[in-house]
Amino acid sequence: MSIHPLALDAAAQRLLFREARTANAFSAEPVTDEQIQAIYDLVKYGPTAFNQSPLRVTLVRSPEARERLLKHMAEGNRAKTAAAPLVAVLSADNEFHEELPQLVPHYPQVKDDFFGERPVREQSALLNATLQAAYFIIGIRAAGLGAGPMTGFDSDGLQKELLDDDHTPLMVINIGKPGENPWFPRSPRLAYDQAVTTV
Amino acid sequence: MSIHPLALDAAAQRLLFREARTANAFSAEPVTDEQIQAIYDLVKYGPTAFNQSPLRVTLVRSPEARERLLKHMAEGNRAKTAAAPLVAVLSADNEFHEELPQLVPHYPQVKDDFFGERPVREQSALLNATLQAAYFIIGIRAAGLGAGPMTGFDSDGLQKELLDDDHTPLMVINIGKPGENPWFPRSPRLAYDQAVTTV
Repeated sequence: MSIHPLALDAAAQRLLFREARTANAFSAEPVTDEQIQAIYDLVKYGPTAFNQSPLRVTLVRSPEARERLLKHMAEGNRAKTAAAPLVAVLSADNEFHEELPQLVPHYPQVKDDFFGERPVREQSALLNATLQAAYFIIGIRAAGLGAGPMTGFDSDGLQKELLDDDHTPLMVINIGKPGENPWFPRSPRLAYDQAVTTV
Repeated sequence: MSIHPLALDAAAQRLLFREARTANAFSAEPVTDEQIQAIYDLVKYGPTAFNQSPLRVTLVRSPEARERLLKHMAEGNRAKTAAAPLVAVLSADNEFHEELPQLVPHYPQVKDDFFGERPVREQSALLNATLQAAYFIIGIRAAGLGAGPMTGFDSDGLQKELLDDDHTPLMVINIGKPGENPWFPRSPRLAYDQAVTTV
């Protein structure tokens, strides 16, 4: 089967996917608020259901907040999270419906028509904030930085420590320029026929 | 605040995010298996926890399968799903651990050490397959196509109709070249300070 050419240029394919890797070690170069803003201003356009945009990002900048975060990370993630230039906690805002009149101006009643009940909001926020978390990872790579996303942490402990009852942690991401020996060898992926079927 | 330049070139930024839109109407041009393979061979590199890669894609190609799908779509999604050149059902494989020895050759025991219990697998598959669903949407755009992702369907009905007990539907995506009046006006996004905070 011949490979169909993509519209996306080869350099962008390499930057975002083919050569991009999960970084475990970083250089000392800081990651600025301007860089995070540039990332956000790109990936905010990624689609969510009813444009609900439930992802919230908490940048952990103070040494004191970093210490409080580290307590809740799995042991294997602690050293690299302590050393990363910047760490972000990504969470789902279960009260995202409050912003829907701003986000869906042509149908502000969607706030109550679809999302009046908390369990419905929690399920929708989890799915859509996770989509946005993936866009954010892509955005970090688009900025020429390395991302080290992690789900190994005590979720309840982290939520109580740095967030609140309305924000469910999804992942913690180390962010920075990759340093020395930043990643493991690339692991295999599933073959096309293992992941895609036709009916 | 000045905007930091991204490493990703401007054309790629436009193709994937800035000018990309959720498509609701498509041209008649078919979407080939070669195009889907090119998309998969790009986005398969997107990161998942332990490289678990739980996303499964079911391409709905036969008219009979399309009819069976349509029964379970929300009424507002039915006409556009009937008309799209190609429809894909994205699901999370809750038995993804069976493939872990292939995907994590340096630590095949991860299959049992971390993912021996079904509820743990279901939670992990949901999160990681949703990340991969976002990569897949980006990949459709990278192929120069329009994506119309939808979560408005009867999940239990769709699962019974086209999948099985081990595969949880995440979303249905219409895929094709955008047609006439393919999208609504762009809705507002949250300002940076509404989505990003610093501690």
